[in-house]
Amino acid sequence: MDLARIVADIGAEMAAAPDRGAVADYIPELGAVDPAHFGMAIVTADGAEVHTGDAATPFSIQSISKVFTLALALGRLGDQLWARVGREPSGLAFNSILQLESEHGIPRNPFINAGALVTTDAILAGHAPREALGEILRFIRAAAGDDDIHINPAVAQSEQDTGDRNLALAHFMRAHGNMKNPPALTCGTYFHQCAIEMTCLQLARAGRFLMGGTDTPTLVSPERVRRLNALMMTCGHYNGSGEFAFRVGLPGKSGVGGGILAIVPGCASIAVWSPGLDQNGNSQLGTLAVERLVHATGWSVFS
Amino acid sequence: MDLARIVADIGAEMAAAPDRGAVADYIPELGAVDPAHFGMAIVTADGAEVHTGDAATPFSIQSISKVFTLALALGRLGDQLWARVGREPSGLAFNSILQLESEHGIPRNPFINAGALVTTDAILAGHAPREALGEILRFIRAAAGDDDIHINPAVAQSEQDTGDRNLALAHFMRAHGNMKNPPALTCGTYFHQCAIEMTCLQLARAGRFLMGGTDTPTLVSPERVRRLNALMMTCGHYNGSGEFAFRVGLPGKSGVGGGILAIVPGCASIAVWSPGLDQNGNSQLGTLAVERLVHATGWSVFS
Amino acid sequence: MDLARIVADIGAEMAAAPDRGAVADYIPELGAVDPAHFGMAIVTADGAEVHTGDAATPFSIQSISKVFTLALALGRLGDQLWARVGREPSGLAFNSILQLESEHGIPRNPFINAGALVTTDAILAGHAPREALGEILRFIRAAAGDDDIHINPAVAQSEQDTGDRNLALAHFMRAHGNMKNPPALTCGTYFHQCAIEMTCLQLARAGRFLMGGTDTPTLVSPERVRRLNALMMTCGHYNGSGEFAFRVGLPGKSGVGGGILAIVPGCASIAVWSPGLDQNGNSQLGTLAVERLVHATGWSVFS
Amino acid sequence: MDLARIVADIGAEMAAAPDRGAVADYIPELGAVDPAHFGMAIVTADGAEVHTGDAATPFSIQSISKVFTLALALGRLGDQLWARVGREPSGLAFNSILQLESEHGIPRNPFINAGALVTTDAILAGHAPREALGEILRFIRAAAGDDDIHINPAVAQSEQDTGDRNLALAHFMRAHGNMKNPPALTCGTYFHQCAIEMTCLQLARAGRFLMGGTDTPTLVSPERVRRLNALMMTCGHYNGSGEFAFRVGLPGKSGVGGGILAIVPGCASIAVWSPGLDQNGNSQLGTLAVERLVHATGWSVFS
Repeated sequence: MDLARIVADIGAEMAAAPDRGAVADYIPELGAVDPAHFGMAIVTADGAEVHTGDAATPFSIQSISKVFTLALALGRLGDQLWARVGREPSGLAFNSILQLESEHGIPRNPFINAGALVTTDAILAGHAPREALGEILRFIRAAAGDDDIHINPAVAQSEQDTGDRNLALAHFMRAHGNMKNPPALTCGTYFHQCAIEMTCLQLARAGRFLMGGTDTPTLVSPERVRRLNALMMTCGHYNGSGEFAFRVGLPGKSGVGGGILAIVPGCASIAVWSPGLDQNGNSQLGTLAVERLVHATGWSVFS
Repeated sequence: MDLARIVADIGAEMAAAPDRGAVADYIPELGAVDPAHFGMAIVTADGAEVHTGDAATPFSIQSISKVFTLALALGRLGDQLWARVGREPSGLAFNSILQLESEHGIPRNPFINAGALVTTDAILAGHAPREALGEILRFIRAAAGDDDIHINPAVAQSEQDTGDRNLALAHFMRAHGNMKNPPALTCGTYFHQCAIEMTCLQLARAGRFLMGGTDTPTLVSPERVRRLNALMMTCGHYNGSGEFAFRVGLPGKSGVGGGILAIVPGCASIAVWSPGLDQNGNSQLGTLAVERLVHATGWSVFS
Repeated sequence: MDLARIVADIGAEMAAAPDRGAVADYIPELGAVDPAHFGMAIVTADGAEVHTGDAATPFSIQSISKVFTLALALGRLGDQLWARVGREPSGLAFNSILQLESEHGIPRNPFINAGALVTTDAILAGHAPREALGEILRFIRAAAGDDDIHINPAVAQSEQDTGDRNLALAHFMRAHGNMKNPPALTCGTYFHQCAIEMTCLQLARAGRFLMGGTDTPTLVSPERVRRLNALMMTCGHYNGSGEFAFRVGLPGKSGVGGGILAIVPGCASIAVWSPGLDQNGNSQLGTLAVERLVHATGWSVFS
Repeated sequence: MDLARIVADIGAEMAAAPDRGAVADYIPELGAVDPAHFGMAIVTADGAEVHTGDAATPFSIQSISKVFTLALALGRLGDQLWARVGREPSGLAFNSILQLESEHGIPRNPFINAGALVTTDAILAGHAPREALGEILRFIRAAAGDDDIHINPAVAQSEQDTGDRNLALAHFMRAHGNMKNPPALTCGTYFHQCAIEMTCLQLARAGRFLMGGTDTPTLVSPERVRRLNALMMTCGHYNGSGEFAFRVGLPGKSGVGGGILAIVPGCASIAVWSPGLDQNGNSQLGTLAVERLVHATGWSVFS
């Protein structure tokens, strides 16, 4: 299998694709990103790296950060985190408050916004947001083996300025006793974690711990890695999670900045970025690119 | 790996398990089944068969039939079936009518009842229920390589007698133009397909086509097999699908009769049966048994 | 107060009104009705009758029949009917199935479709639909003092042909034990009761028993009359009930045929008909006409 | 009619009633109120005042304040307020966030919490909360003809401390552009308005403007009075509004402090207080007392 050739072909196809989806525009920093961007990077279990396009251009990882904060929170709290957040697909939009009401403030899973706020709240745990953010950055930098990963302060500020829906979720969960820190602090931390910027290369490297192979850095136990991958498979693409599993067949997590992290257990960590989104808020060309890759490599976990 | 020993140990543990869940009691035929039953059978890609407990006792496959009817309907209609049923987890109970209302009569996926009714409606397609049921049975018998698979008429009659919720779903979809045959006919066919009885051994053999290996009978194309497995992973256990993926890490489909069919792509087809159900309507010991098996064999698709 | 003059002025205004709403078109018989129709009739407590426009043209009373069947069912069963149907506004569309699910098959009130089906089911009570319909017709004819009131069989047949949503509601309630007769029979009876045709004059006369004055025929006890009026006030116009109370300030019940029955307690019974509907399914000009009438007469119960 | 005797009899019955409901306990100040309290006061159109029990004991008016803020906001903004809040019963609990989601941040009516927050937000309109509260108090004092009406600061503080659900509603509406002031300010103002304390006598006097008779102080136009009464009838008792209309037949507004203000148009203003609540959050004995009063006086608007 000539992975370099496969990836180059995908890069060429995506560079020329006419229908690229719509860039998120709820904050000016995301709305201004050029939809022509496309980047992809793959790190395999044997340490090889293959990439194409804008793989070295930083982008806003947004909800992909939820994978790292979940791994971090589980490492600190262990399974008691699951008393505060579920493990089921939600069947609703990423920021829906509806299910929270009928389920008494326990979010469906850690990858919808409400669940990610619980995760961040568990990491915050009474400390200053600055400290929690330092810890999150240290985890990601260690995973990527790269200290040049930072928060974009303008993005964080814009998230804050338009963050009422997340503040509503946080206050709602606090009313149910499922938010331990003041909502403004937890949301502030969350807005900053979403504003972390990484390149495809950095993100693919940071995802190596989810491959679960023996030679990769073991930030997380093999059993927990399996479970993180299971959650990414069933819940990683909001209300398009079933579609991603159906088309791609890999655990993955998307962000509204147009990035996707996908894992081939025991085999590869894949990062892809294209800013245009589909109707479910997932990268349109990013999804297509991983689908092409899996088709060419046979990497689906279902075959 | 000594699979026979692993399976025997699991059989022994499950036979002695004190907490066995509650047997479904909405029809007398299911309510009368002894919760002490436990059976498991595994067919591997190389043709080996391992089993334990009541692996040769027939049980009501119930919703596991949805996997076979979906494969059959896709084989006949191809992807146009997806215009009538979605591919996303529902986040609600298996027989919920709520989402149907907000989504205009298009069920979330083919494994909730509404979606399975659409699938059966597509197979029925104006023919007599008897013919459609004959086709369904032929498909399952061919998959299992065993003609001794039958419908239990008493179960089918009881399903019919208590089938108002499914009739409500069918009429509701018909009101939205998504039920082509009279609801009584489609539901009648569906009640009979749910009343098919199989043993664990028959079911594990019937699941071979979902392994996707080259030596297994190819009832369905490799791409479709991947997609069926993806749907089983994200939607196969009703509102406990996330939990099954989290604990077990295999595509699977459960039935309210206490059976589970789980697939290890390229490697094995697993059938397990224990009549007691958990709060989501999935076999309690069946789930635990497959979890034990995956732990011992490393068969999770996520590692 | 010159009621004749007031009513004539309203008739003239409505005859010339350019925006008349949209005629219901889910069955051909309703869709073919000329939207130019407008009729109004008022019977006062002292027996005077005033009318204008097409007050002698029969129209399909549709959901207005629910008032009469409710009075009839309460007369037969008394308050035990309230164990099967609630008394609260629903906040949802007239044919919504959503609330039924979260409230275990007990409809919110007798004026949404599900609640009206329970009422009809209570009248049916094991008898043949023909007998139940005879009883309903006798009640209405007695209230109107007019035997020339009939069911339009073509309308009834069309209702039946498009009745899947009501059949879904009925099967759903039967699954919850709240439908005693076979859904096909209860729905069949209901479709026929909705197909009763009356003129504005007949309907205004039939509503006299809801005025509650001492000189009117006492089909129903004064306390029950108050309660029927309360239900008409809070629930009589589907999801536009609040709006009707706000604008008009009278208990009323609308039908998708464009009729409205409104009651001025102790004072008058009002029937109005104009086939064009607003977005909530209530007669657009009919509502406006009653609003004009109340403004001119000071008949609001809130002043 | 001997109103004094009727009221005295009701007072005696309520004082001895064994089943008094449960006092609200979400804040200590309400939880500590003695459920033995019962008070009732009536002011008639001719200026007579009749009262019984603890009619001179101040209690927390809570949601009854919503009637006064709505009158005040309508007086200032006129009908443009209705672009931000609806006029339909909600069919859901007073503090539900569910409907807000499907209806894009527009609350169903001004008497559920979300709608009352919009009303208060409209009064606040960029001013300091202290000024808005001054205006609200001035309105109520003018209506009551009594300057000895105050905010209980301990109650206001407790509301604030447990106000996360209201803050969630406010942030949610702000995310939809339907909250003009910072949620903390609007909610702070709202928590203080709910903490206003009045006696039954003061409240009955303050309700005179809703009687709509010509001799009463005209704070509000007759048409607006009719509309306020209509809203109180259809929406004034949360998810028990239909029940209050059914049993009592008067426009009314309840508060979680156990107070109810009910209006007999053209005839009387009624205030009742008993701290124990029914399952819908409305005063249990208060409702019963007004029901008794209406039965004895024939004051239902529906007769």
